[in-house]
Formats: sequence, structure tokens, C-alpha cells
Amino acid sequence: MAKKDPVSVREALRIGKAGRPDPGSFPVGPHKKPKALKELAESGGKLAELQEALYAEGVGGGRRSLLLFLQGMDTSGKGGTVGHVLGLVNPMGVRYTGFKKPTAAEGRHHYLWRIRQQLPAPGQVGVFDRSHYEDILVPRVRKLVPAAEWRKRYAEINEFERELTDAGTTIVKVFLDISPEEQLKRLKARLETPAKWWKYNPADLDARAQWNDYQKAYADIFAKTSTEAAPWYAVPADHKWYRNWLVAWLLIETLQSMDPQFPRAGFDPETELKKLEGVGVPG
Amino acid sequence: MAKKDPVSVREALRIGKAGRPDPGSFPVGPHKKPKALKELAESGGKLAELQEALYAEGVGGGRRSLLLFLQGMDTSGKGGTVGHVLGLVNPMGVRYTGFKKPTAAEGRHHYLWRIRQQLPAPGQVGVFDRSHYEDILVPRVRKLVPAAEWRKRYAEINEFERELTDAGTTIVKVFLDISPEEQLKRLKARLETPAKWWKYNPADLDARAQWNDYQKAYADIFAKTSTEAAPWYAVPADHKWYRNWLVAWLLIETLQSMDPQFPRAGFDPETELKKLEGVGVPG
Repeated sequence: MAKKDPVSVREALRIGKAGRPDPGSFPVGPHKKPKALKELAESGGKLAELQEALYAEGVGGGRRSLLLFLQGMDTSGKGGTVGHVLGLVNPMGVRYTGFKKPTAAEGRHHYLWRIRQQLPAPGQVGVFDRSHYEDILVPRVRKLVPAAEWRKRYAEINEFERELTDAGTTIVKVFLDISPEEQLKRLKARLETPAKWWKYNPADLDARAQWNDYQKAYADIFAKTSTEAAPWYAVPADHKWYRNWLVAWLLIETLQSMDPQFPRAGFDPETELKKLEGVGVPG
Repeated sequence: MAKKDPVSVREALRIGKAGRPDPGSFPVGPHKKPKALKELAESGGKLAELQEALYAEGVGGGRRSLLLFLQGMDTSGKGGTVGHVLGLVNPMGVRYTGFKKPTAAEGRHHYLWRIRQQLPAPGQVGVFDRSHYEDILVPRVRKLVPAAEWRKRYAEINEFERELTDAGTTIVKVFLDISPEEQLKRLKARLETPAKWWKYNPADLDARAQWNDYQKAYADIFAKTSTEAAPWYAVPADHKWYRNWLVAWLLIETLQSMDPQFPRAGFDPETELKKLEGVGVPG
């Protein structure tokens, strides 16, 4: 069975005062690729089972949902994580949203407006590929609005996330942590492979040039918005196979702690079975 | 490699004047479960690759998308098909919508209103689990509106779907065809398994009692709405493993005929590679 390690992945990755593990390190779980891949494949059934129970709970009138945030520098593997980890569960229960640069229409609203449109329904697993944290990161690093403006967003976001968790949404905020050396390799690979050109944007280089500013902005985000209700986890992401294993287990542990329940029957199964026999087979 | 059979799945399943294959029959492709499962697993990569190209095309400014409709009697396997077939591709590119009984708010709009809200964006694979065809089926069988009302919907729907295909959406309409005997088994299994109770609704028995009325309503839908632009396919669905293989290959063949293209670079890769080296690694 996958994950014999007794250490909780959530505990190991939760961002606290101790700083973050190195992007190339293995703070918990399997350290070797073949083992991690085998365990991830085995974990698929467990994750799918828990997700199905959450979905069923929602159909039965439950209000709970799960919301995964994926943040990270370009090439950190947000799309790959969605494919390899969320790809393990039934797409019926997954609601994926990629937040790009706000459109002109979105920009006329409060920055949380478009986020609210995409919240998961009861029973769903929502996935935010980037999120309202971009509304602190980008304005700060690129000096697009006065500092007072983005600074007040920490508290606003904590308030907003508290509102979500109060309403039954469990939030898992993941920072996919890659090193600048690994990013260099991945950007090169994108530029050298025509089938990957669509993933490349010349603006990625501007963001890379401001690497340290982004890291500083992220550090402040973690310090100010990693709350009990909505904690941040740092996932060492230089190794894709390890990143996938970690995110899968963050979700499994979170769902296990939610302990979703298949709903009781809103009917009497015995009576229905008898009625079913009575309906007969048309022909 | 999967599918050595030279017969096109789309040709074999397309609903025409010849009537539909038996729900338990094997009109095309593998007839044995182990072979079908092996081939489906092998097809996953092909489907994922084609879907990624469509997604990339969309990122590059392409307007095309794919839209799969799943219709069928209760227990015909709409959810299972989504899990086993759409689960083979990256959830980033999939937009799933389950259409249930319209809410009071939805009911105050034209029946196509809520459908339009959920159309796939360029590059996406949309999945409609039930669709506007329910707005012919249910009112007709349950006599909820005058016949003149639902009868005019055939033409309206053809018009609507033509509008979608003109705008770049390729439509694949799938009828998951199960026999009443197989439905009996599956409803029994649901009632005998507490973890499946959430899938059961006592109203399913009313629909089963009207089996022949629904079949007749479906037959008219196929006759009137299987157009060149948006054809209907009948998938024999008594065997789940066969159903999954068929839907996977309907999607693969459709995507192959669309021949999605990775976009050209909107930049000069050589120049970008040089710039990338220049950015250096921050320290």
C-alpha cells in the first residue's frame, strides 16, 4: 500500500516559522522515482474513493467542498499537477479554473469578484490555477498600484477565505516551489520543443528577472495568510514525480480528515426493491 | 497498438436509417473485456495528446472546441463514461456540466438559456451529462407542455447546434443504449449497496415504467436531429468496458478528423533562448 511513512504530509509541508524545505529536497515520503510513481498509481483509487464520497455527500444535501489553490513561478508545474493528480478522480466532481491576467471587464470589478464566480459547489473539488494571490504578487512586484492598495488585501483575503471555510469549503493552498536553476532548464526545454511553444510567453523572462522580488512577495503572503482555517503548504517541486506524490497525499490527508459520508437513503431500500420487481421489463 | 480494426467507430455507430445495434452487441472493435481494457489504457495517451493539441490551439488563438453530449436512460453509465474516458485527459481542458431538473430560476428562462452558459471555451472539451434533449424527452413523455410546444424544439435545437458548429465547436452526440434487463440489474445493485444509494432516486422507477415512451421519444429525436453537422451515435452500453472503449474511440476519431495544431511561436525561439541565458540565475 502507498505511504507507509507515518509522518503526516500536511505537517511536513505546512509553512511555518521554520522556513521552507529546499525545492530539490525530500522532506517526507518516497525519495526515489520508481517508488513514488508506483505509490501514486496505487493512491489513485484512494483519492478517487474519497472524492466520490464527497460528491455523494453533496448530492445528499451536504454543503462541504474542497478547494485547492496552486501557486508558483512559471514552469513550476501547475498544469502538470492538475493532469497527474486531479486526473486520478472523476472529472464530474472537479471544477478547474485557470485565472489569467484579468480581462478589461474583470478589471472593472473588485479583484475577488471573478474568484467568487468560480467557487466549487457542494461536493465538488475546486482547483484554482493561480488565484487572488496574483492580485498581491503582480501589483506589488510590478508596482502597478500604490503599496497601501495591495497591503490591505492580506486582511481582505483572510476575511474572504474565512467566509468560505465557514460555509463548508476546506481550503488547501499549495505553493509549488521550484529553484531558479530548474526553471532555467524548463524554460529552455519549452523553447527547444515546438510542441511546447504554446506554454511559453516572452513575459516569463521579465518575471524570472524579478525572481527575488517574487520570492519576497510570496514570503510575506505566507507569513500573513497561512491561517489555521486556510494553511499554506510548500511543495518541493524540482522533481515532478515527487511533486505529484506530495500533492496527491495533501489531498488524501485533507479528505480523510474531512471524512466525507455517503448519504443515507431518502427512501426505504426494501420497499423500492419490491416496487422495482413490480415495474417489470417492458417489451 | 489499440484498434487495429480498420472500420471507423463513427461510421459503425452513427444512427441512420438502418436502426441501432442491440445494446448487448459488439458492432465494431474488441469483443472481449481484457482486450478492450488493454486497448483503452493504451488509447489514453493518444486521446490526451490530441486533447492537449486542441487546448494548445486554443491558447494560440484558435476558436475550435469539442462538445460531447451524453444521453441515456437511468443507469446507462453517463457518470462512469465521464470517469473512465474523460478521466484519461488533463482536467484543465475538460468542462463538465450535469444538467438536472431545471431550477425555478432556470425555468423562467428559455430552455436553451442555461445550456448557453456552459458552452466550452476555445480549446476545451465540453461534456454535457444530459442536455437540451431532456427538454423534449421529459415534457413529451410526462405530458408537461402541449405537444406543439416540444415539437417545435427539434428545429430550434438543430438551429442552435448549427450556430455552435459554425462558431467552431465540433459536436458529438452519444446515446448510451442499455437494455431494460441490464437496467433492472443495475437498479437492483444500487438498492442493495449503501454506497450507491446516492445514485438512486425513487422517480427512476416512474421513468422505467415509461421505458417504451422514452424509447419512442428518443427515436424521434434521432430521426429529426441527427444532422451532418451534429450527428448522433448509438453506443451499445450493456457492457461497461465496451461502452468506454467505444466512447474513447469516438472522441479519438473526432479529434483526429479535427487535426488540432500546436500554434506557431508568437516569438523567435532563438532570440528568446539568448535572452534567457542573459537573465541569469538570481542568487
